[in-house]
Amino acid sequence: MQTKKLKIIPLGGLGEFGMNCLALRWEDDIIVIDAGLMFPESELLGVDIVVPDISYLVENKQHVRGIVLTHGHEDHIGGLPWILSELKVPVYATEFTLAYVEGKLEEHHMLDETELVEIQPREKFKLGIFTIAPIRVTHSLVDCVALAIEPPVGVVIHTGDFKIDLSPIDNKPFDLHTFAEYGKRGVLALLQDSTNVERSGYTPSEQAVIPRLDEIFSRTKKKLFFSCFSSSIYRIRIALELARKHGRKVAIMGRSMVESSEIAQDLGYLDIPPGLVINPGQMRDYNPEQLMVLISGTQGEPMSGLSRAAVDNHKHAKILPGDTVLLSSRVIPGNEKSIFRVIDHLYRREANVIFDDGSHGLIHVSGHGCQEELRLLINLVRPKFFIPVHGDYRHLREHAQVALNTGVIDSSIVIEDGDVLELDAKNARKNGKVSVGRILIDSGSNSDVVEDLVIRDRRILSEVGLVLLVVAINTRTGQVERPAEVVARGFGGADISDQARDLVMSTLNTLSGEERTDYGQVKEKVRVELKRMIQKSTGRRPLIMPVILEM
Amino acid sequence: MQTKKLKIIPLGGLGEFGMNCLALRWEDDIIVIDAGLMFPESELLGVDIVVPDISYLVENKQHVRGIVLTHGHEDHIGGLPWILSELKVPVYATEFTLAYVEGKLEEHHMLDETELVEIQPREKFKLGIFTIAPIRVTHSLVDCVALAIEPPVGVVIHTGDFKIDLSPIDNKPFDLHTFAEYGKRGVLALLQDSTNVERSGYTPSEQAVIPRLDEIFSRTKKKLFFSCFSSSIYRIRIALELARKHGRKVAIMGRSMVESSEIAQDLGYLDIPPGLVINPGQMRDYNPEQLMVLISGTQGEPMSGLSRAAVDNHKHAKILPGDTVLLSSRVIPGNEKSIFRVIDHLYRREANVIFDDGSHGLIHVSGHGCQEELRLLINLVRPKFFIPVHGDYRHLREHAQVALNTGVIDSSIVIEDGDVLELDAKNARKNGKVSVGRILIDSGSNSDVVEDLVIRDRRILSEVGLVLLVVAINTRTGQVERPAEVVARGFGGADISDQARDLVMSTLNTLSGEERTDYGQVKEKVRVELKRMIQKSTGRRPLIMPVILEM
Repeated sequence: MQTKKLKIIPLGGLGEFGMNCLALRWEDDIIVIDAGLMFPESELLGVDIVVPDISYLVENKQHVRGIVLTHGHEDHIGGLPWILSELKVPVYATEFTLAYVEGKLEEHHMLDETELVEIQPREKFKLGIFTIAPIRVTHSLVDCVALAIEPPVGVVIHTGDFKIDLSPIDNKPFDLHTFAEYGKRGVLALLQDSTNVERSGYTPSEQAVIPRLDEIFSRTKKKLFFSCFSSSIYRIRIALELARKHGRKVAIMGRSMVESSEIAQDLGYLDIPPGLVINPGQMRDYNPEQLMVLISGTQGEPMSGLSRAAVDNHKHAKILPGDTVLLSSRVIPGNEKSIFRVIDHLYRREANVIFDDGSHGLIHVSGHGCQEELRLLINLVRPKFFIPVHGDYRHLREHAQVALNTGVIDSSIVIEDGDVLELDAKNARKNGKVSVGRILIDSGSNSDVVEDLVIRDRRILSEVGLVLLVVAINTRTGQVERPAEVVARGFGGADISDQARDLVMSTLNTLSGEERTDYGQVKEKVRVELKRMIQKSTGRRPLIMPVILEM
Repeated sequence: MQTKKLKIIPLGGLGEFGMNCLALRWEDDIIVIDAGLMFPESELLGVDIVVPDISYLVENKQHVRGIVLTHGHEDHIGGLPWILSELKVPVYATEFTLAYVEGKLEEHHMLDETELVEIQPREKFKLGIFTIAPIRVTHSLVDCVALAIEPPVGVVIHTGDFKIDLSPIDNKPFDLHTFAEYGKRGVLALLQDSTNVERSGYTPSEQAVIPRLDEIFSRTKKKLFFSCFSSSIYRIRIALELARKHGRKVAIMGRSMVESSEIAQDLGYLDIPPGLVINPGQMRDYNPEQLMVLISGTQGEPMSGLSRAAVDNHKHAKILPGDTVLLSSRVIPGNEKSIFRVIDHLYRREANVIFDDGSHGLIHVSGHGCQEELRLLINLVRPKFFIPVHGDYRHLREHAQVALNTGVIDSSIVIEDGDVLELDAKNARKNGKVSVGRILIDSGSNSDVVEDLVIRDRRILSEVGLVLLVVAINTRTGQVERPAEVVARGFGGADISDQARDLVMSTLNTLSGEERTDYGQVKEKVRVELKRMIQKSTGRRPLIMPVILEM
C-alpha cells in the first residue's frame, strides 16, 4: 500500500498578489516553483521590496533540488537574489527568462556562483525524484511555460501565469495539445493562475491593440511618447513596427526599457531594422513628427523616465505642448495616486495624454486569462484536484467555485501560504503549517549587493537603526513650509539629526517647485541622499522612512 | 463704461477631488459656495480630514455675506465647523442639507451660534449684491440644487454635483426648464461638475439598480447585509422597499447609517411602514431569512459597522456562513486596499460577498453625470464662458475640451484653486492669485469640539508635539513581532515613551488575531488609546502617526 504522499506547500502568492513561490515535496526531494517579490503597499514606508520568508526551505536545505521558473516577471523571479543567498541550488528556466535572471544576478554579483540551466518546452528533465515537462503558454511576456510535474503519485500541472492567446504576435502558440494529452492520461492536480478570475469572457489577443494604436500613430502630429511595461516585449514590438510604418525614429529611454529591449533583440524577439532606433542625443536631428520615444514608467514610479520627463527633469525626454503621451498599460490598483500625479503633470506640459480610462479604445490587454480561458484549461486538463494559485483570498475562493462549476473535477481545494497540502492518488488533505511571512528589503536605489538591509522578526529595529523624517510641503506651490524634522534612533549615540536635517533641506532646494509637488519624487530623492550620507558618516544602513506632510 | 468686474475665486476642489469651496466677489460683496472637506491620502499619516485654507475669506471677513450649500455631501459641507469657527456668517441650504449641517454643528457645539437659512428651489433670495436662485438637480443624495447667481454683470450658474436622472425615485425632477430659460435669456458663465467627464454616455437612473438588487434579495437564503453610502437616501429607500417585499425585517447599524436614515425619515424621504425596522437586539427573534441588516462601511473604514462585523467584533452584526453581504457602492480609488481587506475577512467568514467588480450586474450607479449629460446641460444653458469645477487638473482640462466641442460656448477657461478669474460682460481673464492650501485636521475618533488639532504652516510640529509609533505585526498570524517603538518629540521634556509603549502593547493584546491582521483597525485603535492617554497625562494633543511594519 502506497503511504507516501506529495506535499504542496505555498510559500508566497496564495492569499496575496506577488512574491509567488511554491514548494513540492516527495519524501526527501523538494523542488521550488518560482521565486518572486512583491512591491510593498504604501503603508510600508521605507521599504523597497518584499520577498517570501523561506525558512522552510532553509531548514530543509539538503533536500532542495532546484528552483524552476515559469517566466520572467518580477513577481516570479524578483526574489531570486535573496533566496539564492540562503540556498545554493540550480535555477531552471527558458532562455528568455534566464536572460532576465542573469541581469539580476549580475547586478548582485551572484552570477558566477549560480548554476543556471536552460529548459525548453516539451523537453522533460529530472530534478530529484521529479520529472518535469515545460509546456508553452502565452502571456504578456515571451517564452513562458507551465510545468507538468511527475512525482510517483501522478501528474501535477502548474500553469504559471497565462492567457490563451490564439493569435500570438510571435507565432508560438499556446500548447493546447499537450494539456489535452495530459488530461486524457489523467492529472492528479491542477494549480491555476487566479489573477483574472473576476472577469467574465476571454482576454483579447495581444493583436487586438494594434488597430487603435495604429490610429493614434496616424493622428499624432508631434512627438509620440510611447510607454508600456518594459517586460511587455510584444507591445514593444508592436510599437516599433508602428513607428517604422509611420516614419518615426525611435529613442529608447529609461533603464529597464533599454535593458529589456536589448535582451529581446539579442534573443530574436525583436527584429529591429537598421536605422530605426537612434540615440537620445540624435533626437535634435529630427522633427517632432519623425520621433517616437519608447519610455518606461507607466505606474508613476518616482524615478522612472516618464515621471522625470513629466516634471521636465529628463535630459533627453522633453515633453512640449502638443506632444502625445500614450500609456499602453493598466493602472495597477494602489498606484492610482502616483500615476494620476504624473498625468496631471503631463497635462500641465500641455501634452495630449492617452491612458486606459475606458474612453480611449483598446490600448492595452491583460496577460492573464479570464473566466472562459480558466474553464477551457480545466476542461482540457480534467484534474482530480483543483488548487487555485496567485491571488487574494477572495480570488482563490472564487476560482475554486469557477472550477467546481465546470463539472469535470472531483474537488477544489483552497490553500494559503504556509498550508501543507498532502496528496496521494485518492485523497487530499491539509496537514499542518510551515512558517511563512514577508521579508522586507530596503535595497536602496543604487544598491548592487545582496547585503541589503533585511528586516525580519529576528532583528529589532534598534539594531539596524531607524530614521524618521517629516517634511512639510505645500503641494500647490512646492514650498517647503518649515525645517524638516529628523528623528533618529538606534545609532548607539551618534547624533546625525542636525547633519541629516541640513542635507534634507539642501536636497529639497535642488528640486524644482514642480518636482517638490510630487511626493514620490521628494520621498525617493531625500531617502537616497540621506542613506548615502548616513552610510558614509556612520557605516550604518538604517531604515529611512520619509513622511510628507502635505500642506 | 462698466469697469467693475466679477471675481471667481476657487478655494478648494479645482485641481483635486474634495473640499469644494468657491468664492464669488463683486466689489465689497463676497459669497461662498460650499464648504467641503476631503479625506486625506494614505500618505498623510495621523490626519483625519483636510479642509481648505480660507485665509482669503478671513482677510476679507467684513465682506463675506454668507455660505450657500448645494447639497449635503461631506465634500461640500464637511468643512463648515472649521470655516465657521473663523468666520461667523449665515449658512443657506435646502431643508435636507440643513438637517445634515445641524447634526454636524451640534456635534461641535456650534449650532446655537450659527444662523441657518432654509432655501427652496425656484425661490430667489438676496445675499449682498447677489440675487441667488436655487434650481433643483438630481444626484445620489436628495434635495440638491444648482445655483443661478446674478451679480450686476450677468448670470453665473454653478451646477453643484448632479446627474440628470429622468426617473428619480422621489418624483422630484431635474429642473430642465429653468436651465433652459436661463439659457434663452443669456448666461455669462457656467461652472459645471467635472467628476465623470472621462465617462462617455449617460449615467443610468437610480431606478436601474432595482432589478438586480431584487434578484439578489430573491436568491438570498440566509441573512442579507446591505451596505451603501449612508447619504444614499434613494438606495436606502430601495433597500427598505425590497426588504418589505421579500418579508425581511430591517436592523440598521453603524452610526452614520442610523443618523442618516432618521433624518430622511423625519423629513419624509423615507416612508417606513410600522414594524419593518427592528432594534438590533430583536434580531434573535427572527430566522436568518427574515432579516436584512442595513449597515455602513462600504469603503472599509476601520471603525465602521461592516469592518467590525467582518472581523467578528460587532455586538449585533454576526456574519455567519451562508449569509450574503452586498456592497451597493463603488470602490473609491485609494480605498482598494482597505475594502479588499474587509472583503477577504468576509470570505473567511464564508459569507457570499457581492460587490461592484463588473461581474455582479448593476448594483450601483453613479450620482454624477457622464459626458452626454454634461453636454446636454451646456446646450441648455449656452453660457458665454465655461468653467469646469470639481476634479483633478486633467478632468478640468478634459471638461473644457468637451464643452468647446459642443460649439455653443464662446470659450472654456481652466482655473485652479487660488486663481482669481475676473469677468465682465465681454471678457474673462485670470488676474492674480490668492493664498490657498490644505489644512490638516486630526479630529480624533470621538472628538466633539472644534478645538481639534489643526496643523498648518503657521505652527511647527514641535509646538504641538509628535508621536511616531512603529508596530511590527505578522499580517498572517496577527502576532506582534516585537515591542512597539515609540518616538515622541516636542513634549517639553515629559517622557511618555515607556508609558506609551506599554499602552500600545496592552491595546494590541485586546485585539483578536484576526483584528490584528487588519492595519486599519490596528492603527485606529492604537491611535485613539494613545491620544486619550497622552491628553490625560500631559494635557497635550500631539499628532500621532502609527506606522505598521508588516512582517
